[in-house]
Amino acid sequence: MTLRSLGVELHCRCIETESKPIGRHIEKVELIPANSHCEETEIIATLKKTGQEVCLNPNAPWVKKVINKIMSNKQR
Amino acid sequence: MTLRSLGVELHCRCIETESKPIGRHIEKVELIPANSHCEETEIIATLKKTGQEVCLNPNAPWVKKVINKIMSNKQR
Repeated sequence: MTLRSLGVELHCRCIETESKPIGRHIEKVELIPANSHCEETEIIATLKKTGQEVCLNPNAPWVKKVINKIMSNKQR
Repeated sequence: MTLRSLGVELHCRCIETESKPIGRHIEKVELIPANSHCEETEIIATLKKTGQEVCLNPNAPWVKKVINKIMSNKQR
């Protein structure tokens, strides 16, 4: 059993983050807390239709709003 | 290409949610907004070490705190 098989990444996964507010195109969001392999929280959104994965900036106000909206359980 | 191959689930994934505050054991968190196949936001946490997937209640105060802490980018 490797670390990777447990979903443990040994480095940051995001190189650059999306600047455009793409909240309405998001199918799901993965939050990876800062850890010993990556000192920044990483947010990876999977887009509807294409299934494309896009990194989001956890410090961007529109990203915080998208996460808050999902958490508040409001249907899109 | 099936809907499932695009990561589209045709039903809710969570049957029950974890009631104990397990924030410190979380490796990553997946947020799935309410959609036409599931009317509740679903939060699926993957645990460190075991890789076990656990559903969390988006309305539980401790879950909101865990998400806010991850978003605030504080290293664990």
